[in-house]
Amino acid sequence: MAIWNSRFQKSFDKGALKFSSSIDIDGKLYNEDIEGSKAHVKMLMKQKIISTSDGNAILKALEEIRKEISNGKLNFDWQKEDIHSLIEERLVEKIGERGKRLHTARSRNDQIALDERLFLRKEINIVSKLITDFQKALLKQAQQNKSTIISGYTHLQQAQPILFAHHLIAYISMLQRDKERFNDLMKRVNLSPLGAAALAGTSLPIDRNIVAKNLGMNGIILNSLDAVADRDVLIEFINDCSIVMMHLSRFSEEMILWSSQEFSFAKIDDSFATGSSLMPQKKNPDIAELIRGKVGRVYGSLIGILTIMKSLPLAYNRDMQEDKVHLLEATTTTKDSLLMATELLNNTKFNKNRFEKELDGNLLLSTDLVDYLVRKQVPFRKAHQMVGEIVALCIQRNIKLNQLPIQEYKQFSVKFEEDVFELLTARKSIENKISQGSTSPQEVEKQILFWKKELSNSLKEKKQNIHNNKKNIK
Amino acid sequence: MAIWNSRFQKSFDKGALKFSSSIDIDGKLYNEDIEGSKAHVKMLMKQKIISTSDGNAILKALEEIRKEISNGKLNFDWQKEDIHSLIEERLVEKIGERGKRLHTARSRNDQIALDERLFLRKEINIVSKLITDFQKALLKQAQQNKSTIISGYTHLQQAQPILFAHHLIAYISMLQRDKERFNDLMKRVNLSPLGAAALAGTSLPIDRNIVAKNLGMNGIILNSLDAVADRDVLIEFINDCSIVMMHLSRFSEEMILWSSQEFSFAKIDDSFATGSSLMPQKKNPDIAELIRGKVGRVYGSLIGILTIMKSLPLAYNRDMQEDKVHLLEATTTTKDSLLMATELLNNTKFNKNRFEKELDGNLLLSTDLVDYLVRKQVPFRKAHQMVGEIVALCIQRNIKLNQLPIQEYKQFSVKFEEDVFELLTARKSIENKISQGSTSPQEVEKQILFWKKELSNSLKEKKQNIHNNKKNIK
Amino acid sequence: MAIWNSRFQKSFDKGALKFSSSIDIDGKLYNEDIEGSKAHVKMLMKQKIISTSDGNAILKALEEIRKEISNGKLNFDWQKEDIHSLIEERLVEKIGERGKRLHTARSRNDQIALDERLFLRKEINIVSKLITDFQKALLKQAQQNKSTIISGYTHLQQAQPILFAHHLIAYISMLQRDKERFNDLMKRVNLSPLGAAALAGTSLPIDRNIVAKNLGMNGIILNSLDAVADRDVLIEFINDCSIVMMHLSRFSEEMILWSSQEFSFAKIDDSFATGSSLMPQKKNPDIAELIRGKVGRVYGSLIGILTIMKSLPLAYNRDMQEDKVHLLEATTTTKDSLLMATELLNNTKFNKNRFEKELDGNLLLSTDLVDYLVRKQVPFRKAHQMVGEIVALCIQRNIKLNQLPIQEYKQFSVKFEEDVFELLTARKSIENKISQGSTSPQEVEKQILFWKKELSNSLKEKKQNIHNNKKNIK
Amino acid sequence: MAIWNSRFQKSFDKGALKFSSSIDIDGKLYNEDIEGSKAHVKMLMKQKIISTSDGNAILKALEEIRKEISNGKLNFDWQKEDIHSLIEERLVEKIGERGKRLHTARSRNDQIALDERLFLRKEINIVSKLITDFQKALLKQAQQNKSTIISGYTHLQQAQPILFAHHLIAYISMLQRDKERFNDLMKRVNLSPLGAAALAGTSLPIDRNIVAKNLGMNGIILNSLDAVADRDVLIEFINDCSIVMMHLSRFSEEMILWSSQEFSFAKIDDSFATGSSLMPQKKNPDIAELIRGKVGRVYGSLIGILTIMKSLPLAYNRDMQEDKVHLLEATTTTKDSLLMATELLNNTKFNKNRFEKELDGNLLLSTDLVDYLVRKQVPFRKAHQMVGEIVALCIQRNIKLNQLPIQEYKQFSVKFEEDVFELLTARKSIENKISQGSTSPQEVEKQILFWKKELSNSLKEKKQNIHNNKKNIK
Repeated sequence: MAIWNSRFQKSFDKGALKFSSSIDIDGKLYNEDIEGSKAHVKMLMKQKIISTSDGNAILKALEEIRKEISNGKLNFDWQKEDIHSLIEERLVEKIGERGKRLHTARSRNDQIALDERLFLRKEINIVSKLITDFQKALLKQAQQNKSTIISGYTHLQQAQPILFAHHLIAYISMLQRDKERFNDLMKRVNLSPLGAAALAGTSLPIDRNIVAKNLGMNGIILNSLDAVADRDVLIEFINDCSIVMMHLSRFSEEMILWSSQEFSFAKIDDSFATGSSLMPQKKNPDIAELIRGKVGRVYGSLIGILTIMKSLPLAYNRDMQEDKVHLLEATTTTKDSLLMATELLNNTKFNKNRFEKELDGNLLLSTDLVDYLVRKQVPFRKAHQMVGEIVALCIQRNIKLNQLPIQEYKQFSVKFEEDVFELLTARKSIENKISQGSTSPQEVEKQILFWKKELSNSLKEKKQNIHNNKKNIK
Repeated sequence: MAIWNSRFQKSFDKGALKFSSSIDIDGKLYNEDIEGSKAHVKMLMKQKIISTSDGNAILKALEEIRKEISNGKLNFDWQKEDIHSLIEERLVEKIGERGKRLHTARSRNDQIALDERLFLRKEINIVSKLITDFQKALLKQAQQNKSTIISGYTHLQQAQPILFAHHLIAYISMLQRDKERFNDLMKRVNLSPLGAAALAGTSLPIDRNIVAKNLGMNGIILNSLDAVADRDVLIEFINDCSIVMMHLSRFSEEMILWSSQEFSFAKIDDSFATGSSLMPQKKNPDIAELIRGKVGRVYGSLIGILTIMKSLPLAYNRDMQEDKVHLLEATTTTKDSLLMATELLNNTKFNKNRFEKELDGNLLLSTDLVDYLVRKQVPFRKAHQMVGEIVALCIQRNIKLNQLPIQEYKQFSVKFEEDVFELLTARKSIENKISQGSTSPQEVEKQILFWKKELSNSLKEKKQNIHNNKKNIK
Repeated sequence: MAIWNSRFQKSFDKGALKFSSSIDIDGKLYNEDIEGSKAHVKMLMKQKIISTSDGNAILKALEEIRKEISNGKLNFDWQKEDIHSLIEERLVEKIGERGKRLHTARSRNDQIALDERLFLRKEINIVSKLITDFQKALLKQAQQNKSTIISGYTHLQQAQPILFAHHLIAYISMLQRDKERFNDLMKRVNLSPLGAAALAGTSLPIDRNIVAKNLGMNGIILNSLDAVADRDVLIEFINDCSIVMMHLSRFSEEMILWSSQEFSFAKIDDSFATGSSLMPQKKNPDIAELIRGKVGRVYGSLIGILTIMKSLPLAYNRDMQEDKVHLLEATTTTKDSLLMATELLNNTKFNKNRFEKELDGNLLLSTDLVDYLVRKQVPFRKAHQMVGEIVALCIQRNIKLNQLPIQEYKQFSVKFEEDVFELLTARKSIENKISQGSTSPQEVEKQILFWKKELSNSLKEKKQNIHNNKKNIK
Repeated sequence: MAIWNSRFQKSFDKGALKFSSSIDIDGKLYNEDIEGSKAHVKMLMKQKIISTSDGNAILKALEEIRKEISNGKLNFDWQKEDIHSLIEERLVEKIGERGKRLHTARSRNDQIALDERLFLRKEINIVSKLITDFQKALLKQAQQNKSTIISGYTHLQQAQPILFAHHLIAYISMLQRDKERFNDLMKRVNLSPLGAAALAGTSLPIDRNIVAKNLGMNGIILNSLDAVADRDVLIEFINDCSIVMMHLSRFSEEMILWSSQEFSFAKIDDSFATGSSLMPQKKNPDIAELIRGKVGRVYGSLIGILTIMKSLPLAYNRDMQEDKVHLLEATTTTKDSLLMATELLNNTKFNKNRFEKELDGNLLLSTDLVDYLVRKQVPFRKAHQMVGEIVALCIQRNIKLNQLPIQEYKQFSVKFEEDVFELLTARKSIENKISQGSTSPQEVEKQILFWKKELSNSLKEKKQNIHNNKKNIK
C-alpha cells in the first residue's frame, strides 16, 4: 500500500508500479537519504515539532535501517516505489506510530533534491581525487621522460619535435581545469533545499538553516519552488563529466595510436591488454578503446537529462525521477574511466628512442630555419616562403634538410651560414625554445616542479573529504 | 584464464577485467548466441570441417547450456569476460576436447555481429506488435468518441472544433509510419555476417549461405570487413525508437494537459495515477510524465551510439562493445513505454461534454465565416481580413460570434445573410468539412473503417513471428 | 595564393578551398583578431624582435583595416581562407614588406585560440547583462503581483496556492546560478594562449605575459600544447548557454500554458503575438514558442562541439575550425532568446483575479488540514491518511473542503474543531506559511528586497565591461 | 502589415518580428513554395473554387515571381515574416484582388509541410546521386588496387593481410545501405499534406488527390491533423544523414592515418592539402579533417530537431519553424562532405608497396597457422593456444614467424611440416582465403564486378530525377 493511497479507490496497477518504481536507481542514494532524514529529525526535535523521545527513537531506527541495507538484510523491493517509501515503511514496522512523524513538514520533492545534492557533494570529491591520481600518473611518466623526444603533431602530421614530458603535461593542465569546474560547482551544490516541502514551504515552525548546518552545507536554496523544481546542478555535473571524458577520449586515442605497429611508441603491459579469440598474435589496447567508447555514455547522459528538463513547467514533475538514471551513468562511467586511464598509464612503457634519430634533419625542423632567418631580420612571411621552397627542393630530391649543401641554402638567402646545420637536430630544436611554457628542457622542468607542488597540495586539502575512495568506486 | 591468453606473459589485471567485462550486457543475448552457434556448427558438420559426432555432441551440450542459463543454474560470472567465452568454456567443461572445435572459422567479431542481428530481428517484431496494440487502443477510444467534440489547437490556442476521434487517429497514422520504418529496417537486419571471421574471411571451406538459411535470414553481408565493422543498423533502430518516443512524448504531454484541472478533459483511472507523500488531494498523471521523461533515455542512447561510431577506423574496435548498452536501453524503454501508453489510454475516460457548449458561437468558428464568404466569391484574403475585424469587434464587446446582430455582419460585407448563424455551432463547423481526411463525421468514419481493417491485418501477418510477446517484455 | 603555399606544387583546388574556407564564420571575430594582433606587435616591438618603426606601421595599418571592415569596405572574400589570412594579406598590400613581420613567432593555432577567448570574454559579459535584464523584468512583475494568488502545480496538477510573485522569483533564482556559472567560466577564459606558436613555443625572445597584460587578461595558458589543443572553455560556455535555454524553455512553456483559453491567466500584448494566415481569430504566443523551439539549436550546438572534440589527438586538428559554428549559434540564440523573453514578459499582463476564488475551499488546501492535525500532535502520516479520506469523500459528494460539516470532520478526527474552516481559503493558506523562502507574503517581500539590492549591484559591477550591449546583439 | 493582422490593435513589434522572421531560412524553399502554390491553384480552378481567368493570372504571376527571386530582383526582406507572405504580398502587388484568392482553402500549416516534402524529395535524389558518385570513386580506386596488399586492422593493431580493394569495397557496401535508407524514406516523403488546411480540413470542395498527382506525389497524408503536426520524415532524413556522416568520418579518419608519416600509405595531391602559417614543411589532410569535424553539425542537427519535437501537443506549434534550420544544416553538410570525400579520394595516390614486404612472415599471419592445424584436425581452440605460444616465442627471440625452424614448430605440434612456410607470406594468406565475401583475389574480383553493374544501374534509374546536380549543390 503506497504511503499516499488513502484518497484513491483502487490500488496502483502492478505493471504501472513496476514501470514507475525507482528503487533500483534511487536505492543507491540510501545513505544520503538516511543522512538527510536524520538531520531533518534533529531539527524537528530542536523546534519541538516532535518530542525528544519520538525523535530519538526515529534516529536510532534509521541507523539500524542503514545497517540493514548495507548488510543486505533489507532488500530493495520494487513494490515499495522508491527508497523514501521503503525506509519510512520499515521505520513504522520497527517503531510504530512514532515512525509516522518522520515525514512531518517534508515532501519527497525536497527530500530527493537534498539526497541528490548530498550525493553530488560526495561524488565531486571522489572524481576530483581520481583526477588528481591521474594527473600524478601523468607527472610520473613525465618525470621519467624528461628527455624523451617525440614528434609533436598537428593534423596528425609531424610538426615539431617536443619532449614527451611536455606532451604529458598538456593533459595535466587540461585536467586541472576539469577539477576547477567541479570545485566551482560545489558552491552551487552544497546548499540545502530541505524545508521547501512540496513547493510552497510549510506552516510548521521548522528551521531550514539548522538542517543545512547539521549536514555541513553552506546555506539553503531560499525560494521554495526553485528548491524543488530545478536540476541545473545535475546538468552542470554531467557536463563537467563530459569534458573529462572528452579529454580521456583524446588520451585514449593517442594511446591507441602509440600502441600501433606503425607508431610503435607505447608498450602496454600484458596485464592491461587483451587478445583475440581467433588471431593468436593479437595484443589489443582494449582499455583505451573502452574508455574512448564510454564517452558515448556520458554524452548520452548529458542529452538525456537536458531532454528531460526541456520545457517542464514548475515545480516538480515525475519526469524528473529519470534524472538519476543519467546522473548515475555519468558518475560511474567517469570514475571508472579515470581509474582505468591511471592504471593503464602506470602499466605502459614508452620507447624512449623511437623518434629522435628519425627526426634529426627532418623536414619538421623547418620552423627552426624560419626563426633563424627572422633572427637575422628577414621578415617572417618572407622567411616562411623561402624555407617552404627549400622544403619543396628536399622533397623533390628526397633528402633531409641537413643534406642540402650550404651553397644551395645560400641561393635562397645569403643570410644562411654554416651555423645553420647546428639547428638541424631534434634535440637542438627543443633546446632552442625559450618562450614561457615551451617544450624546452628548462621550461618543462619548471612545469614539472610546479605540478609536483600543486598536486601534493591538492591531496592534502582533500584528505579530510575522502575517507575511502576505493570503496566508493563501483 | 581467457580464451586468447597463450601469447601473454601475465594474466589480465582484475580491475581491467571488471572494467572490460561485458557479460552483464551481452549476457542478455545468450539465446541469440546459442542459436547462432548451433547454426554455425551444423554448417561445419555439413562442410565436413568437423565430424558429425563432434558436431552432435556440441549441439546437445549447447542446448543444455541454454537451459542452464534460463534456469539460472549457470551464472553470469563477470570474470568470464563475455557471453561467448562463458559458453565456450562451459562447453569444454562439459564435453572436453570436442568443445574446442566450436569456434573453428569464427571470430567473436562476426559472432557478436550475428547475435545483434538476431536480437534486433526479434525486437523489431515485438516493438511492431506493441505499436499495433497501442494503435488499437487509440482506435477503440476513437470509436467510443466518434461524436465527442473538442477544440483543435495550434500554438496551444483554440483553433477549430474537431472530433476527438479525429485527433486520436492522427496518432494512429503517425505510429503507422513508425511501424513502416521498423519494417524497412528488417530488410537490412535479417542478413548474416557469420563467416566474415575476424575481418578477412577464412581459408576453411565454410558455406556462409547455409548458416544464413538455417537462421531464417535472407542472405549474407557479403564483404567480410563490412560484416564486422559497421553498426549502422543499430543506429537506425535506435533512431526509429527515438521517433516512436517523440510521438509518445507528444501523446503524454496531451494526457497531462487534459488531466489538469484547467483542461478537465481526461480522467485517469485511480489504478493508473499516483498521489503525493505530502499533499493528500493529489492525483498525478505519473505514467504519462514518466513516458515523457523516458524520451531522454532514448535520445541519449542515440547520441551514445553515434558518438561511439564517430571516426572509428575499420574494422572492429573494442569501443563497439559499448553499442549494446545503448541498444538495450533504447529497446527496453521503448517497449515499456508503448505498453504503458496503451494501458494508460485503456484506463482513461474522456469527458465527452467538456468542450461542445463552450465552443458554440466561439471565436474559433471564424474560419467558417471566411469559407462562407469565399463560397460567395469574396477573395479569400479579403474575407480573412473582414472576419478578423469582426473578431476584434466581438472581443471589444466581449460577445460571441453568434451574438453579433446580422445588421452588423452586413456592415462588414453585404454577402452575410441570416443563414450565417447556422454555421456558428461547433458541430456544424465539423459537419461542414468535406475535404478528404478532414474532421467531418463521414471522413472520420472512413478513417476508422480503414484502420480497423489495417490493424487486424497487421496482426495476422505478424502472428507467426511473435510467439510470446508478454514474456519478452522486461 | 595562400600564405603557406611555397612548399606546394599546385594551388589549392577551388572546391576544396570553398569547403574549407572559414571566413564567413571567423570573420565575425575580426575585432578580436585585430585586437590580438596589436597586442602581439606591441610585445614584438618591446622585445626588439621587430623595430619600432615597423611595429608602428603595422599598428596603424591594422587600425585602418579594422575600420575598412566595419565600414564594409573590405569584404570577406571566401578565397582568402580565413580572417587571419585576409588581414595579413591586406596588411602587406598596404605597407609591403613590413607587414610580413606581423606573424613573427606566432601561428594561426595560438592566434585563433586567443581570438576565441577574447570573443568569449565579451560574450560572457553581454549574456550576463541580458540575464540581469530578464531578472529585472521578472522582479518588476513580481512587485506588481505581490498579492496575486495562483495555483502552484506539481505534475501540472493544482498542488497548493502560492503568490505569483513567489513563482516569478523562482526563475530569478535559477537565472542567478546561470550567471554564476558564466562568472566562474571567466576565470578559465581570460588567459592568453598567445606565444604557444604552433604547439611547441618559439626560439624567439617573446614575452607572453606582456601580451596577456596588454589585453587585460589575468595570465597565460602555460603549457604550449594545451594552449592550442583544447576547446574545453567553449564547451563549458555552450553548456552554460544550454542551461539558460533550458530555463527559458520552462518559462516559455508556462507563458504558453497561461495564454491558453483554458488557463486564461496571461494576456500577451498584441504587439508580441501573431495571427494565423487562415484562422482570423487566432492570437498566438509565438515568441514563447520560438524560444522554446530554439533550445534545440543550443542543445544541438553542445552535441556538435562535443562530437568534434571526441578522440582528437593533440595538438591542433582542422576539425577544430568547426568549433566556431557551434559557438556562434549558441551565443546568438541565447542572447536573442534572453532579450525576447524579457520583452515578452514586459509586454504581458496577468489576470490577478484568475485563481483566488476558484482555489478557496478547494482540495488543494488539504495540506493545510494535515498541518493543522500535526500541530495538534497527530503523527504526520496518520494525518495525511485521514485527510486523504476526507478528500475522497468530498470528491464522491462533489463538494469543496469548506462544504463538509464540522461533524463529519470530527468523525475522521476529534482534533478537528470549528477553527479548521478559517484555514480553508487560498489566502489564508499562503499567509500561514512561515518557513524561510516560503510563499508567505513576508517571505516573498524579503525575497523581493533581496533581489532588488542584488540586481542593482550586479548592474554597477558590470557597467565598465559592457559598453554597448544593444549594438552587440544581432 | 502582416497577412493576418486585422484582428490586432497594434502591429507586431519590430524586434519580435526580426526574432520570428524565418525568411532567411524558408526563403531557400521558394521554388518548392511556388511549385506547390501552382498545383494548388490548378486544383482550385478545376474544382471551380476560383475562376479560370483568376487562376491563370495567378499562375502567370507566380512564375514571374519565381524568376524575380532567382534573378535576385525580389529580395528576401525579413520584414515579410516568411516566404509565403512575401510571395502572396508580391502577388497582390502584381495582380491585385485576384491574388487574394491564392490562399483559399489553405493554411501556412499545410503549405509549409508540402514545401518541406518537395524539398526533401529533391534532396533525397541529390544525396543519393552523390553517394553513388562516392561509391564509384571507391570502386575506381579498388580496381586500381586489386593487388595492393595492406594490413587489415582490428583495435588499430595489425590483424591479417587484406587487399586494399577489399577494404575500399567495405565502404561501398556501407554506403549502399545508406542509399537504401533514403530510398525507403522516399515512400513516406512523397505524399501531399495539402488540403489539411490549418488542422481540420476545409468546407470548400477541394480535391486533395489532384494536387498530389500534379506534383508527382504518390498520394496524400490522409488525416488532416497528422498532415500538419508531424515532422517525423525530417527527423528520419537527418538521421539517415547522420549515418552517412558517421561513415564518412570513419573514411576520413583512415585517410588521416594513412597520410601520417607513420603510416605513409596515402599521398594526397597538393591541390587537396593545405599548409601551415608557421611551419613551412606542413602538408595537412584538411579536407578529411573537416569532413570528420562536420559530423558534429549533423549530429547536432539531429538532436536539435528531436529536441524541438519533444512533447509538443498537436497540431502545429511555432517551435516547428525551427525544423528547417536543422534540415538545411544537415542537408548542406552531408552533400558538401560527400562531394569532397569523392574528390579527395580521386586526388589521392596510394603507395602500393607500402605493406607487403613488412607483412611477409609477420606475426599477423598467425591465423593462417591456426587454420593449417585445424585442417589437420587439431581442435581450433587447441591450435589457437599452440600458435599463441609460438607467437610468444618469436616475440621473445625477436624473430618473424618464418624465421623459426621447422624443428621448433614440431615441438609445438607434430602436425607442422615443411609446407607450413609456404603459408607465411602476406599474399599467400590472402590467396588462401576461400569464403564468400573474403579478401581473396577471386572474391574481391566478384565484388568489383557486382558493384560495377550495380552502380551503373543506379545511375540510369536516377537520371530522370536529377536534372542538374552540380547546380543544386551549394
